Amino acid sequence: MSREVKPEIVSLCPLGIPAAPEPELLCIYGTGDLGRSLGLRLLQSGYRVAYGSRRPHSCGPLPQGAQVMSHEAAAQSAGLVFLCIHREHYGFLESLAPQLNGKVLVDVSNNLKKNLYPEANAEYLQRLIPGAHVVKGFNTLSAWALQNGPSDANRQVYLCGNSAEAKQAVEEIATKLGFTVLDRGSLSTARELEDFPLQLFPEWRLPLRVTVGLSAFFFFYVLTGDVIYAKVVNGKDISFRIMVSLANKVFPIVSLIMLTLCYLPGIIAAILQLYRGTKYKRFPDWLDRWMLCRKQLGLIALGLAFLHVLYTLIIPIRYYVRFKIGEAIISRSKENTTRELDTTTAWRTDSYYSMGILGFAVYLLLGITSLPSVSNALSWREFSFVQSKLGYLTLFFCTLHTYLYGWSRFLQPSSYKWFTPPGYMLSLVLPSVVLVLKLLLLLPCVDRSLTRIRQGWERSDPENDSKKSLLT
Amino acid sequence: MSREVKPEIVSLCPLGIPAAPEPELLCIYGTGDLGRSLGLRLLQSGYRVAYGSRRPHSCGPLPQGAQVMSHEAAAQSAGLVFLCIHREHYGFLESLAPQLNGKVLVDVSNNLKKNLYPEANAEYLQRLIPGAHVVKGFNTLSAWALQNGPSDANRQVYLCGNSAEAKQAVEEIATKLGFTVLDRGSLSTARELEDFPLQLFPEWRLPLRVTVGLSAFFFFYVLTGDVIYAKVVNGKDISFRIMVSLANKVFPIVSLIMLTLCYLPGIIAAILQLYRGTKYKRFPDWLDRWMLCRKQLGLIALGLAFLHVLYTLIIPIRYYVRFKIGEAIISRSKENTTRELDTTTAWRTDSYYSMGILGFAVYLLLGITSLPSVSNALSWREFSFVQSKLGYLTLFFCTLHTYLYGWSRFLQPSSYKWFTPPGYMLSLVLPSVVLVLKLLLLLPCVDRSLTRIRQGWERSDPENDSKKSLLT
Amino acid sequence: MSREVKPEIVSLCPLGIPAAPEPELLCIYGTGDLGRSLGLRLLQSGYRVAYGSRRPHSCGPLPQGAQVMSHEAAAQSAGLVFLCIHREHYGFLESLAPQLNGKVLVDVSNNLKKNLYPEANAEYLQRLIPGAHVVKGFNTLSAWALQNGPSDANRQVYLCGNSAEAKQAVEEIATKLGFTVLDRGSLSTARELEDFPLQLFPEWRLPLRVTVGLSAFFFFYVLTGDVIYAKVVNGKDISFRIMVSLANKVFPIVSLIMLTLCYLPGIIAAILQLYRGTKYKRFPDWLDRWMLCRKQLGLIALGLAFLHVLYTLIIPIRYYVRFKIGEAIISRSKENTTRELDTTTAWRTDSYYSMGILGFAVYLLLGITSLPSVSNALSWREFSFVQSKLGYLTLFFCTLHTYLYGWSRFLQPSSYKWFTPPGYMLSLVLPSVVLVLKLLLLLPCVDRSLTRIRQGWERSDPENDSKKSLLT
Repeated sequence: MSREVKPEIVSLCPLGIPAAPEPELLCIYGTGDLGRSLGLRLLQSGYRVAYGSRRPHSCGPLPQGAQVMSHEAAAQSAGLVFLCIHREHYGFLESLAPQLNGKVLVDVSNNLKKNLYPEANAEYLQRLIPGAHVVKGFNTLSAWALQNGPSDANRQVYLCGNSAEAKQAVEEIATKLGFTVLDRGSLSTARELEDFPLQLFPEWRLPLRVTVGLSAFFFFYVLTGDVIYAKVVNGKDISFRIMVSLANKVFPIVSLIMLTLCYLPGIIAAILQLYRGTKYKRFPDWLDRWMLCRKQLGLIALGLAFLHVLYTLIIPIRYYVRFKIGEAIISRSKENTTRELDTTTAWRTDSYYSMGILGFAVYLLLGITSLPSVSNALSWREFSFVQSKLGYLTLFFCTLHTYLYGWSRFLQPSSYKWFTPPGYMLSLVLPSVVLVLKLLLLLPCVDRSLTRIRQGWERSDPENDSKKSLLT
Repeated sequence: MSREVKPEIVSLCPLGIPAAPEPELLCIYGTGDLGRSLGLRLLQSGYRVAYGSRRPHSCGPLPQGAQVMSHEAAAQSAGLVFLCIHREHYGFLESLAPQLNGKVLVDVSNNLKKNLYPEANAEYLQRLIPGAHVVKGFNTLSAWALQNGPSDANRQVYLCGNSAEAKQAVEEIATKLGFTVLDRGSLSTARELEDFPLQLFPEWRLPLRVTVGLSAFFFFYVLTGDVIYAKVVNGKDISFRIMVSLANKVFPIVSLIMLTLCYLPGIIAAILQLYRGTKYKRFPDWLDRWMLCRKQLGLIALGLAFLHVLYTLIIPIRYYVRFKIGEAIISRSKENTTRELDTTTAWRTDSYYSMGILGFAVYLLLGITSLPSVSNALSWREFSFVQSKLGYLTLFFCTLHTYLYGWSRFLQPSSYKWFTPPGYMLSLVLPSVVLVLKLLLLLPCVDRSLTRIRQGWERSDPENDSKKSLLT
Repeated sequence: MSREVKPEIVSLCPLGIPAAPEPELLCIYGTGDLGRSLGLRLLQSGYRVAYGSRRPHSCGPLPQGAQVMSHEAAAQSAGLVFLCIHREHYGFLESLAPQLNGKVLVDVSNNLKKNLYPEANAEYLQRLIPGAHVVKGFNTLSAWALQNGPSDANRQVYLCGNSAEAKQAVEEIATKLGFTVLDRGSLSTARELEDFPLQLFPEWRLPLRVTVGLSAFFFFYVLTGDVIYAKVVNGKDISFRIMVSLANKVFPIVSLIMLTLCYLPGIIAAILQLYRGTKYKRFPDWLDRWMLCRKQLGLIALGLAFLHVLYTLIIPIRYYVRFKIGEAIISRSKENTTRELDTTTAWRTDSYYSMGILGFAVYLLLGITSLPSVSNALSWREFSFVQSKLGYLTLFFCTLHTYLYGWSRFLQPSSYKWFTPPGYMLSLVLPSVVLVLKLLLLLPCVDRSLTRIRQGWERSDPENDSKKSLLT
């Protein structure tokens, strides 16, 4: 069938220049959405495409210019075969093993769920046809991107496979189609590539759950101490405060706690290492998982801090605030007494705002350095400088901001409605503890042992010696 | 001539260690700005450089250390030739074909305009000297970057060419010069690489034109209903409102409309697919172009929303606002009546601000995920989740924000000056329509057919069958 | 010793499928922190690992599964050797030269300081064992990342070496370990790679020093003219103004000056080129260094502008401001005269705010385009359009913003306390000069000569001819 195309190609070169060699024939198994889109794009990029089909004459509309062949003929005539079929239908391939021997097999398949099968589709395929060079790839792209070329989240083609030559061949095709190729190593990483298109922010789930839990708790806590207390005790309906005032209490409280949660696991790890006298023991699982989601915790906390900033800045244009201020000025003007500017209050409130602004600015810097392209450009020392030194500076600024907000109210009994402290006092517990512990860890004697342990030194504990060989 | 350099190189190795092999000789045709800069950098990176020149003794100042040869001698002695001359002067190369046979020819040329010639410079070159391995590359860098090494927009060297070995050789040089190499495939993409340095935000033009058009229209619309109406009807000059108040009406109106324009084409496409019963028919051209500039539309709308936020936040420090509020308080204090806080108004205005803040925050999130490094790190499913789900959430928040702004004024005749609705009412038409249509498309029965169509199912329409083979 | 592992591997394949070839044996010299972490990760990725040790039976706990051998045996049996030891201990390797001949030697070492040794560790190593293929790599990763795989600033492995095959072999291992590989060229760039993990924002130092110097100067300048003047002359204590009011004077002043410092060197360079009549002469060193830190200057200035925006937006919620406004309204209400809105003031203040907002918005756009992933996506022409055209627009907006702030106060003697101008007037000198010079450079006649010079044209000055050959 390939002979039919030859004359056309030759007729495209009327300039007397030797004709380009006939383009490579690629074969696609699978005439579904993915197979069609891929075929269309391959044809547009100058390849010849043959579809392998059980019933070559009844497989529906295919891209114009594509040939249709029997499975055997397609496998025979093409050097590279794309598999765009579901894993359940791989069975028929076994009978094609002789034809596929030595060919490059690109497994484009995806599963509907994670962990449906004990091994990756591509590994199963390699096991079925040991003589073929299986390459996993193109499966992370949407059918739309396969048809129309790279767009935002569809720029990169991840490849893996055991044969470097096979990967090279697939890489050339992907490059010609306009994609950037990332080689992910051998076929054993196929599972990872197959899970990739199924994932929906897996590393954000735990932090988001923490956020929702904390927000719900503090919302009801603040609602009780504010709106419900006013209703029950004073009989006033101030439920309109929910939309802005209460939100502007919940956001900063949760933000500060979550910022602290970024630094707490580091403190716990340091204490564990000091206590154990070695860094060569695994941390408990919960600590490992906690440490791995610090970045997400921090970014959500930054988002809440941003909301807090906006909610604070619109305060003076709120109807309620303008009404209150107007009333206050009118009643003051009727009192007819002169009031003095209270310099202490001026110092306190201005410091309070200043700390908040500086804390937010440093926090934003942390957020910017965690953008992939920025953190890639940093050396490891620079990144840890920013995330650790500037991180603690942020925590310090934000904690001080909250203390200055409370100020003398910590000692006023009227703050403690129904004998419970207001929300912001609760939010101060954890940051204060973390900051004190961090200061203790920075004491010269403690810091010295910790540094030694982190450089690989181990406390030679006679009873520990037996455990050393358990290191994994 | 290459023998002249040898003794120097050897004398650099006085330590008794075997001398490094003599560095490769590279040849540059063209002694203009680009040629000189490239030569300087190559010399600094340890290469030997020879300039090919028609008149070897009168070609002006060249980088120190570079040799000057006749065209023939240069082509003869170097394995790799950089072409830093204009396409119009390629003619002389034909006579060098024997010497250039089998050599790597790097075409660094650029044109002054797009579409000046029917084929790319590099393809023309390959046609002139079929025996050489032409590689297009380095043309996207500025002369400054060629001389001083990578800087911001000059980090990446794009290459294309038909010979993998030739590309490999050029890649090694580019890497040694400090650049990152991106292989863009075969020589047929040369045209793309040659157009790249000429482009000036081509995909932003249409969205910017839409922005300017909408802004101009709404500016005059708002100017008429506000400043001119006040002048004509009340005889008051409130033209000072142009700088902030009017700007702060135009920006949010245009922003909301442009945000809607990001989602409207998706709705139209879905309706088209439902109507046609297949996804395998091309959309009309205007719809395709519209869909391709959705990202730019959205980012400009985000910029306008950002301006709206800033313009809103400075309201309370404006002289005009302070004056008005002062007057209001003074006249209220003279009335001597007590006014009650209107809880409904408090609820409404606070909700209005809350919706605006939340809408802006989610919108910012959309903007951040469209940064190249962030969207590259997302799976396709994650990206479309953010852009579609969170996008509609943004649209919903912003539309609700505008409805709450209007509130009861929709029914007050005084809002309709000169029998025209105020600008924000106009801006609500499109978002309301899009949200309603989206809700209709989410109805189970509609959603089911749409999903089937998008998975490749086609409505078997007897009259359609004849058209199927036309699929391109 | 490698025979011990074989039976285990075979027993892992009970399915009748031919066993995978035995994994490659890699050797690690050095049982310190880095060596252990690397070994652990290699073992987890399926490699066999042997540690070379002088005293194979007393080298402390090693990862489970790793073999321990004598130095000779390890060098003999492995094809690839990782060197995780300090440069001072390289001496013993000389005696292993026969065994290491033809092997790939990966130098993972780092130094404690820059410039400790005259040549890079890897180059020294290559000189010690000329027969081995030395590859520098993995040294930019932290031990934590080596053990746990890629994380934020630890995604990329930089490699350099003289043998392409050796680099290919190391690249495969790095890819299998999950890292992205960046080939930095030949071994002569090893020094750069060894300096990378030691650097701590080297290019930010000068700009940060400028920031601190300018901020300190203007802080004391403003403190004198504001707080100290009020204390000495009026006897009032307004020191509470330090936290917000004074900060909000220092930040914008320093920001505007630093923004100007981004554009001043370009102007100086243009004048130098015009004066010299050529672009082929080196700029003085200070100008080169200045031009290379423009991006950092600009980003710090943007940060200060951001602080200025936040400090400005919280003005209306400050206690001091509310108090003052309340007093003003009360005293106005007692005067019992009607005041008119001053339209000129309304125009001026609104324009002042508008210019500030627009300037900040364009500035932010500049900041976004300087993110690595965004600037990589721009063509050189687009990048210079944004940084030059939009940059001058920013400077213009911000300068106008400051002039509108001053307005008539430039002529009021009361502005000049102790006969010195207020800070913002000082900050206007440099931007005004830069804008005027830029306008002069844009005059058609000047612009034409400059363009010609930048395209490589040189003024043929008889006395210059002798200097031309000095071009380096």
